[in-house]
Amino acid sequence: MTMSAEPENPASAPDPEAGASIAATAGKRALLGVDAPLRLDSGATLGPFTVAYETYGTLDSLKSNAVLVCHALTGDHYAASTHPVTGKPGWWGDLIGPGKVIDTDRFFVICSNVLGGCMGTTGPRDLNPATGRPYGLDFPVITIGDMVRAQGLLLDYLGIETLFCAIGGSMGGMQVLQWASACPERLFAAVPIATAARHSAQNIAFHEVGRQAIMADPEWRGGAYLDAGTRPRAGLAVARMAAHITYLSEPALHRKFGRRLQSRERLGFSFDADFQVESYLRHQGSSFVERFDANSYLYITRAMDYFDLWEANGGSLPKAFEGTKTRFCVVSFTSDWLFPTAENRKIVHALNAAAANVSFVEIETDKGHDAFLLDEPEFHSTVSGFISSAWAARQKAVRA
Amino acid sequence: MTMSAEPENPASAPDPEAGASIAATAGKRALLGVDAPLRLDSGATLGPFTVAYETYGTLDSLKSNAVLVCHALTGDHYAASTHPVTGKPGWWGDLIGPGKVIDTDRFFVICSNVLGGCMGTTGPRDLNPATGRPYGLDFPVITIGDMVRAQGLLLDYLGIETLFCAIGGSMGGMQVLQWASACPERLFAAVPIATAARHSAQNIAFHEVGRQAIMADPEWRGGAYLDAGTRPRAGLAVARMAAHITYLSEPALHRKFGRRLQSRERLGFSFDADFQVESYLRHQGSSFVERFDANSYLYITRAMDYFDLWEANGGSLPKAFEGTKTRFCVVSFTSDWLFPTAENRKIVHALNAAAANVSFVEIETDKGHDAFLLDEPEFHSTVSGFISSAWAARQKAVRA
Repeated sequence: MTMSAEPENPASAPDPEAGASIAATAGKRALLGVDAPLRLDSGATLGPFTVAYETYGTLDSLKSNAVLVCHALTGDHYAASTHPVTGKPGWWGDLIGPGKVIDTDRFFVICSNVLGGCMGTTGPRDLNPATGRPYGLDFPVITIGDMVRAQGLLLDYLGIETLFCAIGGSMGGMQVLQWASACPERLFAAVPIATAARHSAQNIAFHEVGRQAIMADPEWRGGAYLDAGTRPRAGLAVARMAAHITYLSEPALHRKFGRRLQSRERLGFSFDADFQVESYLRHQGSSFVERFDANSYLYITRAMDYFDLWEANGGSLPKAFEGTKTRFCVVSFTSDWLFPTAENRKIVHALNAAAANVSFVEIETDKGHDAFLLDEPEFHSTVSGFISSAWAARQKAVRA
Repeated sequence: MTMSAEPENPASAPDPEAGASIAATAGKRALLGVDAPLRLDSGATLGPFTVAYETYGTLDSLKSNAVLVCHALTGDHYAASTHPVTGKPGWWGDLIGPGKVIDTDRFFVICSNVLGGCMGTTGPRDLNPATGRPYGLDFPVITIGDMVRAQGLLLDYLGIETLFCAIGGSMGGMQVLQWASACPERLFAAVPIATAARHSAQNIAFHEVGRQAIMADPEWRGGAYLDAGTRPRAGLAVARMAAHITYLSEPALHRKFGRRLQSRERLGFSFDADFQVESYLRHQGSSFVERFDANSYLYITRAMDYFDLWEANGGSLPKAFEGTKTRFCVVSFTSDWLFPTAENRKIVHALNAAAANVSFVEIETDKGHDAFLLDEPEFHSTVSGFISSAWAARQKAVRA
């Protein structure tokens, strides 16, 4: 395939509306919803809108080798590219590349920033054409279904009818499940990792704490902070700190930090960061603020809270996958208490009830929810094995 | 014993320095550290200072029947009395009373507000005699050891040499362990519940999030908010919301709220409280602010973070209890992930290594850490049984 349908790959200039460094976005962009706007689950419409994405590898002549990588809450489309703000390698650089788990010598890998995001895809920090000012809270509330619809339009734009595979962890896994449920005919294989078919009460609660932290910051200004040339940095940092604890496990925190003191011999008897774990958390909060938009955080957490494949299927999760031909590999991690194995097992049970082709692996690790982003050899070999065998089956099907 | 050493029981007038309704404190007060100030672990001194406390039942002629009830982070001395601000019954009203687990027909029960608290005992919201203004961050950082020293002075003041029993959950349990370690000769029996001999990295992390939420609120004003006639309400509410999630279990949240919507038939597609769990959390945050001081929250969480009976005993927890004659009953709850059974078991192992008299019970419940405050019949019968048998032994010892 020629990629002539795509715009050039401009390293776009910092966006003055962003008020800070988070605006520096590079990569490919597609303008979608031009002929007809996207109808959202809320009933609102959105369009035209931009989707920012990256690709790795080459689409084969049969357009059969596309892999969609779906990112998590605070992720972005720089899955295997240097992040334009932080300068860090892609968040799945270990998995995506020549000869790697998602082998770019074999697959055409697409990763797009989700709808409502802040790294190039249209979201609350972008200009509202109706007012000429940043959307802020005038941006419509979006769902995982809306994110997946936007990804579907991106595939149309790229001329890709069927995905060989959709893969992602956490909220990325929710998108994979949504793909499998809403567009099974476009999906040969699916790898939902460390995820859930609906967000739990505890996870909604943690998200609500983060949102309240942001909205409590006077610099949030009812969501219109960009208009005011400011940003709710302190509130967003607190939201990130609270969330970050949930991404780790207690044993990992103990192993990494324990009660070790930060740059001192004895307790300081003050409210400075006495302990290394405090210093680490503060750093997590302050560095996150440099790369993420607070309103995007509100919208994306809301989309996760709203995700419920039971409710969407009249209370029956197997119905979500009725008659599916997609091959599934569900992965969970033993120390993940945010999306514990029990939640992933519910997906497996529903797939079994729907007579789907599914394998399930629980990886033994102390790294918590974040394990899907880390160097976990057993995780990598599990996904690699599944992708290889699914690819063999896919080639057989294409040839037949 | 006559209680003539105590001041009258004045329903004290609201304290103008408090800036809001949290100042209404009733109950008994003792002025301590008058002859010599209290030397704190930080090296600072404090005195004279006030300890607010409540008592239930009557001290026997041998002064042998005193039970010290130690409260948790956001608790107070109204263990079995109506709270003067909220009008709610005491937090351990189910346990303390005539014929109850801690039988006031038999025992003289004392519960005092901890040092650094905000319900009558001297803390950061009180006037600093050196400046004539509220302490704020000029209040010295205190430790669990300092809290226990203040309680020891209160016992001296009440003419009580030996406690029959010290009992408490969470931070209350830390005080019980500190009593057992620092003053074993004054303690016949000890019931540490849902606690730890040192605060874990994860728990320090959660506390740090709460502190950052408070300090991020511009109304905190570097801790001098009372001077400014304001309070960091939003920050304190966020801190409480984050903490509150850790007091519950995922199954309990699921059972209580699941994904049920709040006063609506369908999703609102907004950032209002769509889900009952959101509404519940917001209520927890806003009601807490009415009864608690933000700086006290900073100081008391810090005291918990600093608690480490290993470190205090050269890295050996058994040393903390060497040669102890105190009888222990350690209690944990299966679904408590804040102070999990594993942490309580470490206390039991150390007591075993110190050849102490110890029984250990893990209570099966889905109520999480908060189970020690709730109606848990097995928990109540466990404590009741231990207290009865320890009391029989105590009476034998007194007669001998």
